Amino acid sequence: MKFEVTILGSSSATPIFNRNPSAQALNINEHFYLVDCGEGTQQQMLRFDVKPSRIDHIFISHLHGDHYLGLVGLLSSMHLNGRARALQLYCPPDLKEIIEMQLKYSETTLQYEIVYHFTNPETPEVILENADITVETIPLDHRIPTTGFLFRQKRRLRKLIADKVAKLNIPVEHYSSLKKGMDYTAEDGTVYKNENLTVASAEPKTYAYCSDTLYNANYFKQISNVDMLYHEATFLHNMFERARVTHHTTALQAGRIATLTNVKKLIIGHFSARYKTLNELLDEARASFPDTELALEGKTFIIE
Amino acid sequence: MKFEVTILGSSSATPIFNRNPSAQALNINEHFYLVDCGEGTQQQMLRFDVKPSRIDHIFISHLHGDHYLGLVGLLSSMHLNGRARALQLYCPPDLKEIIEMQLKYSETTLQYEIVYHFTNPETPEVILENADITVETIPLDHRIPTTGFLFRQKRRLRKLIADKVAKLNIPVEHYSSLKKGMDYTAEDGTVYKNENLTVASAEPKTYAYCSDTLYNANYFKQISNVDMLYHEATFLHNMFERARVTHHTTALQAGRIATLTNVKKLIIGHFSARYKTLNELLDEARASFPDTELALEGKTFIIE
Repeated sequence: MKFEVTILGSSSATPIFNRNPSAQALNINEHFYLVDCGEGTQQQMLRFDVKPSRIDHIFISHLHGDHYLGLVGLLSSMHLNGRARALQLYCPPDLKEIIEMQLKYSETTLQYEIVYHFTNPETPEVILENADITVETIPLDHRIPTTGFLFRQKRRLRKLIADKVAKLNIPVEHYSSLKKGMDYTAEDGTVYKNENLTVASAEPKTYAYCSDTLYNANYFKQISNVDMLYHEATFLHNMFERARVTHHTTALQAGRIATLTNVKKLIIGHFSARYKTLNELLDEARASFPDTELALEGKTFIIE
Repeated sequence: MKFEVTILGSSSATPIFNRNPSAQALNINEHFYLVDCGEGTQQQMLRFDVKPSRIDHIFISHLHGDHYLGLVGLLSSMHLNGRARALQLYCPPDLKEIIEMQLKYSETTLQYEIVYHFTNPETPEVILENADITVETIPLDHRIPTTGFLFRQKRRLRKLIADKVAKLNIPVEHYSSLKKGMDYTAEDGTVYKNENLTVASAEPKTYAYCSDTLYNANYFKQISNVDMLYHEATFLHNMFERARVTHHTTALQAGRIATLTNVKKLIIGHFSARYKTLNELLDEARASFPDTELALEGKTFIIE
């Protein structure tokens, strides 16, 4: 039940040396997901050993360049490197036109299919469900249509306690119902309690990605109690007015949001290029939410 | 009379760690020009101290992503950093639609004007002429419409030999004709030869940028005798067939072209990601043209 988030980029729109724009790679039970894809994400994937060939799902929060300008290059490289498997792309509808125009003018016909799943910035929707997870959009409040993404690991079946199952000679056809939590009734009528034959699997984990957004209580309920929250914290709170006008969040607000929503851990990112060092942003968020970390590039956060 | 070429990127389409796709910054008499703008060029400019605010002219050879995907990010950053001066963009016509669509969907109205100058891949045309240089397109033979660029420094006026001019008390109104090479006739009718009163300015320099192209003699005449030729050399010659099919050049061919066109110096670049080291490419080109160098990132070539 692995759930890891690797930061590939954490800067906001204006570039700064040694910080890349937004991108994160998620490893959930050895399946890989890319969230946002700023310019240079391909190089960051090479740097931090995230293999594009293992990515089957890409999520784009919105169409500001620092969140998607690395995508067409990545899609082209997947093509040049022989990808055949379909790629699932969750994004605002207009991204399709942007991608298709650029493929058209480069006279590129991808060798694989892009399956588009358009996000709706008005209301939360489950946009992906597979054996491991569900992913829901989080409507955010930014200058253009924007959604965050809420990843919920699914609860796994209970695990059989092998020696007990063997000792009782429980037939294989009962394993499935045991894993689902049902008791076992032997041929002689004896009932064996499930809790003595199985153990619960690890608690499923939840991760919310919220970038970019104004501080706005509308989405707080949806992210409540998640195990880890990534929240943008573009500015220090002394730039509150600038944050308000540009529809961004301050580090102090990000800390408050983590407290109000009772999350277990907070990661802040999307730092303005004006901050050469990030300690002040971290201190400000930690003042209200101590378990805060910086989204530093190359860092992997394990949700446990 | 400065003429310097700084390599910002030299890889071809598939990414490789520590090599960036095509981009070069030219400093000609302290005016700056950007040639191609692959993904990540902004970061490379930060790395090698090329200031976007000093770039007024950008040249894009063609619409394969490794030559232009860094452009929209750069244009956005110029906007965010307060640029007001118009930017001249020399490019295939379709790039305008690509840029405008992306600005539209990010709801960005640039604070400065982009003045488009569309290139014609069929015939050489002078697309820029200013006090320092002329720039001509070089029609190349690639899979999609592509032009190289030929930069020609203008010849500067002759320089007065100050002490001689002073000794003869030559009136200021004659300086202009002297600088243009005319003799000086004094009031007493004595004719003073120009060559004794002035010295020639430095020879104007020429630089040709040829990426991407099949080996094709059609453009050889146009680049003949340039002081420095940048030519793509995507493959070793043992991949001649792959080069032919993809409309690229081998290192051996690039060396031959430099010899046939009698250029003074050759820089090779646009290396395939399959080459982790570049010595073999260099050796192959040098076998027919010894004065060859690799387009290594961060390296500045001074045309003297």
